[in-house]
Order: sequence, then C-alpha cells, then structure tokens
Amino acid sequence: MAPVTNARQIFNEVPTGYPIPGQTMVYDTTPTIDLENVPLNGGFLVKTLVVSIDPYMRGRMRDASVKSYVAAFKVGEPLENYGVCVVLRSENSALGAGDHLYGMLPFEEYSIQTKPEKFGKIKNEHNLPWRVFVGAAGMPGQTAYCAWKEYAQAKKGEAAFITAGAGAVGSLVIQFAKRDGLKVIASAGSDEKVAFMKEIGADVVFNYKTTKTSEVLAKEGPIDVYWDNVGGETLDAALAHAARYARFIECGMISGYNAAAYPIMNLMNVMTKEIKMYGFVMTSILPKYRSAFYTEIPALLASNELVFKEELTKGLEGAGEAILAVQKGTNSGKSVVVVADQ
Amino acid sequence: MAPVTNARQIFNEVPTGYPIPGQTMVYDTTPTIDLENVPLNGGFLVKTLVVSIDPYMRGRMRDASVKSYVAAFKVGEPLENYGVCVVLRSENSALGAGDHLYGMLPFEEYSIQTKPEKFGKIKNEHNLPWRVFVGAAGMPGQTAYCAWKEYAQAKKGEAAFITAGAGAVGSLVIQFAKRDGLKVIASAGSDEKVAFMKEIGADVVFNYKTTKTSEVLAKEGPIDVYWDNVGGETLDAALAHAARYARFIECGMISGYNAAAYPIMNLMNVMTKEIKMYGFVMTSILPKYRSAFYTEIPALLASNELVFKEELTKGLEGAGEAILAVQKGTNSGKSVVVVADQ
Repeated sequence: MAPVTNARQIFNEVPTGYPIPGQTMVYDTTPTIDLENVPLNGGFLVKTLVVSIDPYMRGRMRDASVKSYVAAFKVGEPLENYGVCVVLRSENSALGAGDHLYGMLPFEEYSIQTKPEKFGKIKNEHNLPWRVFVGAAGMPGQTAYCAWKEYAQAKKGEAAFITAGAGAVGSLVIQFAKRDGLKVIASAGSDEKVAFMKEIGADVVFNYKTTKTSEVLAKEGPIDVYWDNVGGETLDAALAHAARYARFIECGMISGYNAAAYPIMNLMNVMTKEIKMYGFVMTSILPKYRSAFYTEIPALLASNELVFKEELTKGLEGAGEAILAVQKGTNSGKSVVVVADQ
Repeated sequence: MAPVTNARQIFNEVPTGYPIPGQTMVYDTTPTIDLENVPLNGGFLVKTLVVSIDPYMRGRMRDASVKSYVAAFKVGEPLENYGVCVVLRSENSALGAGDHLYGMLPFEEYSIQTKPEKFGKIKNEHNLPWRVFVGAAGMPGQTAYCAWKEYAQAKKGEAAFITAGAGAVGSLVIQFAKRDGLKVIASAGSDEKVAFMKEIGADVVFNYKTTKTSEVLAKEGPIDVYWDNVGGETLDAALAHAARYARFIECGMISGYNAAAYPIMNLMNVMTKEIKMYGFVMTSILPKYRSAFYTEIPALLASNELVFKEELTKGLEGAGEAILAVQKGTNSGKSVVVVADQ
C-alpha cells in the first residue's frame, strides 16, 4: 500500500497572550507514513482515535527553559495530550493489533510508540465511546474524582462553590458534591452553561459575566468547599466569603493563563478562617484512587447516573481553534478532537 | 485589711493603624479591691502574676460587630490574654488557695473568676519561672509545636524558611526544624535578632530590612516548608521560590495587621507547584497534641535543650508600650508583662 498522509498539529511558537491558530499551532499535512512497512524497531504503530483539549495545555506553551510540573511543548514538534489510540501493528509482546490504549499522544494521525508502560489498555466493559476515555472516564474525570475524594472532606449540608461548573471537570464536581449532600453554588460564563449546571443539579447557578460573584457568595455563602478552576478575582471573592475551616481545591486558575496575574487581597483570611488550600496536579494523587475510579466511574456513565457533555471537533485540522475556544471558554462541554472513528 | 489598688489596662478605642498607648489602651489605677472581703459568690479570687503580649492581639482590637476566630476586646473593659495567676481565695471545691492557673486573664492585678474549666492547673514539675508558661511552655510554644507536628511533614535534608525567626513562635520553630534535620533559612528585622537566630541553629539568617528576601530564597531555596508569621511581600516571595509539594504554615501575617493588604501576585504557584497552604488557629489543633506538649517541652526547656528568649515588662502600666513594640517588632524575645512576682 502506498504511503498515506500523516497530518499533525505542530507547536510553532510560544504565545504571549491567547494562543493563535495558524501561528501558535500550525496544521501540517505534508508528512506521510507507510503503515505496512514503516520499521517499528521493537515498538508499535498506533492510529490516533481521539485527543483531548484541556485548559492546562496553555501552561505547556512556554519557553522550554521555564520549569513547571509538566514538560513544555517542543517548538516544531506535534502538540501532545491525553488521547486514545488503537494498535495497528506491534513488535512488542505486551501489545497486539486491535488493543485500545489511553495515554499521552502526539497530535498526529499515526505514530510509532516505543513504551507500552506509558499507556493503559482500555477494557471498556460498558462499551462507552472511546472519546469518553479522555473525558469523564479520563484525565478530567480523574481530576474531579481524585481531588474531591482527597481534599473536599465534604460533609452533608455544607456549601460548595464550583467554578467553571459546566466544564469537563467542574460538571463532574457538581455531581459529586450533590451526591455527597452539599448545597452547590456554581458559576460559568454563558447562559447556556448556566442552564446546564442547573440541569445536572447545582442549587444556585449564575453567569459570572453578568452577576457579581461576591454578591452571590455574600447571599448564598459562606462556602465550606471552593473548587477553583479560575483563580484571580473569583478566588479573591471566595477567600472573602469562606467559612471557617474551608477547603480550597486549587485545580486551575485559567483567568491567569493568558493574562497578567490578578492581585489577591484577601489571603489573610487563610489564617483567620483556618482555610486549607490544596494545590495539586492530578497525576500526583491518581495512583491512590485509580482502581476505585475505573471501578466506579465508567459504570455510572453507562447508566447515566453521571452526566457528561462533550464538544467534538472532527479531525486534527480544527485542533488549534478548539484549543483557543477552551482558553476563552467559548466551548460547551468537554472538548475532544475525534481524529478517526475507529 | 483596707482595699488595695487594682490597676488595669483597659481597651479604650479601636485603632486604625498601630495601637497607641494611652489612647488605644489606657492604664487605670482608680479601681480598688478588698481582697479579704470581696464576695466570691461561689467563684475564686486570683492574683495575676504574668500576662502575655502577642501579635494576634491586634486582631482583637476591632469593632465588636466584625466576626473573627477570636472575640473582639470590649471597649471600656480590661484587655485580656493568656496569663498565669495564683488563687488567693476560693469558694469552688475544684481549686484552692496557692493553686497556679494558666488561661485567659484580664489585664488587671486581681480578678474574680467563676469558671475553673477556663483554666489549666500548672504542675510545674521542672520548677520553671511562671512566666515561661505564657511563652515557650504556653500559647506560643503550643503554636510552634502543634503546627509543626501537624503540617510541616518535615523530611531530613529539606529546606525550611522561617519568618520572624527571633520571635516567641519562630525561634522555637527554628529549633524544631533543626531537630528534624532540615536546612533552616530564617529572617528577622534587626541585626540583634539575626544574631540570635544564628545562635539557636539557623543555617542561613538575614535581616529582611537590609537584604531582599527573594534574593536569599533564589540562592538558598527552593523551600519545602514555609513558616509564615508575616504574610505580604515575604509570602509572595516564598510562593515564587517554593519547591514542588511545599507546605506553607500560615501562622501569622503581621505585615497586614496594621496596614492595608499587600497584593499577592504569585498565588498561581499554589497550583503549579502543588503547594499545600495551611491556615490554622492553635486552639483548633491543641487538643490532639496537648499531652505530648506538656510531657516534652517543659523538660526540654529545663535542660536548656530548647532555648527561649524573653523581654520582660514590669507591671501592667507598661503593657500598652509592650503591645505596640510587638506590633512593630521592636521587642527582642517573647514579650511578657510580669504583674507580680508571686
């Protein structure tokens, strides 16, 4: 068989503000690959089915000399993120053709991988669509599940405030908090998102662009648990309206990813209110909860006891726009690029 | 016997910046008390031996309508704080004349108390001076001991940065950190304090008024444990130079007690570095450690394995100046007012 196109999205340059499709990331259809004959050298050839688009990716678009909890993208190389692939050919005895794998994948249609230990084999006992394994049954789901279990110390009747509550992580946190019997206050940036948060059970919902967070919290708080996806001014308001002994789960601070830092004025409340603030990266707590997660979550998704919304982009060509949308919050639901159906 | 003077320091008005002796607090020698005949109504008459002067007292000098973790001082009433007293007469069978008690006492020479449960009877098995029981063997000691045990998760070879390291709490934390095998970086606001921190074992010491904290931390960090007594700009520098998984023990933020809040710019590091920030009030964690504290600490003080510096004020008249000195950091060592020798 003749070589086929192996399209990819490469990281082209470090952005200063929002990433710009076609400039920060560039779609490239020039590479080809001979699927039958490309040498594997003991590795395995995979076909990318889906890749995830997540807020944290902005942090990887930095100069490689700046250290952080996750490696910088390499200029001139494909972007990468969590994805699902299927093995086409394998010279590694641990894997065979037809195996579906979850792990960090380059943004290209086909790739040769060498390290089976970098991936998890997906059993998919509930026949979920593969894309769910980068969403509610993947990294965002694990983020919500593990950190809620580890840090929320949720007690029935307490109040939780969840930001970006219509997002991939936030929408699951809302549902976990309701299952634990909490009053849930949730914010998002569009009326459509606000309606969705109500639909999945949040008690008090509002559009932070049209309603002042501090006013809602003054009325509906104080808050015992704060799930932070946004940071900045919202975090400052949460500090002002925290209950004594509040737990702040610092999952994300997207308001600061593409802009200068917002000055936080209410940090003294950490002391006077005995607030515990937990910064975390999901991979640090996953090992403790991985087994429980895969036992519990796919089943709840299959039975619709857990609801999850997705926004699909067809093909890697649209990955750049999808990345920008997630940074701006104009997406609706977990952003996934479906590269191939099977 | 004729009535005697019962001098006191009253809280006269809510300050806006630093408290002003003679205005914020006023020394009053007009009350008298008849020690032999004053009716006890089932209570007990105590003579105040020492009262402690602590940074946190500034937080109690507020309008009573503002809620916080500790009650506001009442205008027109004596100030109060931890102290040691001796029982002169008692109509309560739980206590007898000569008992020495530790607990919250009014800033007056004599008082009639009604609740024995508000006090702890001091055994003083090591014959320490009574004033030590408001210092290293009292609230500041308990603060250092309990929070270090609860939050530091200290591992040998790690680096700790301790602010106000010559103070009542900080100087003990330095010694606890060294006992646990950490590298200790410590700051204070005078060369005399810096010399004392070196004396008690800190590895890297500096005067934050003449040396930039961020420069020291850039060179000597990153820091695994940050003991915060000051907040503000120093806290922001600690965030910038924190190691991954750092623990921030938020004991105090004195830089903000008498001034407007300092804008914190580096809070995103809480997330990217997986920092855990622990706000606490000592009384919340004391029950877990009280017994271990009284077993361990008085003995270490008696044997000089733990070193502790005090600044004594003789008589309640000087309490106002002592309070201001602690807020400004011009005191040297734990500030104690010795009201009576026995």
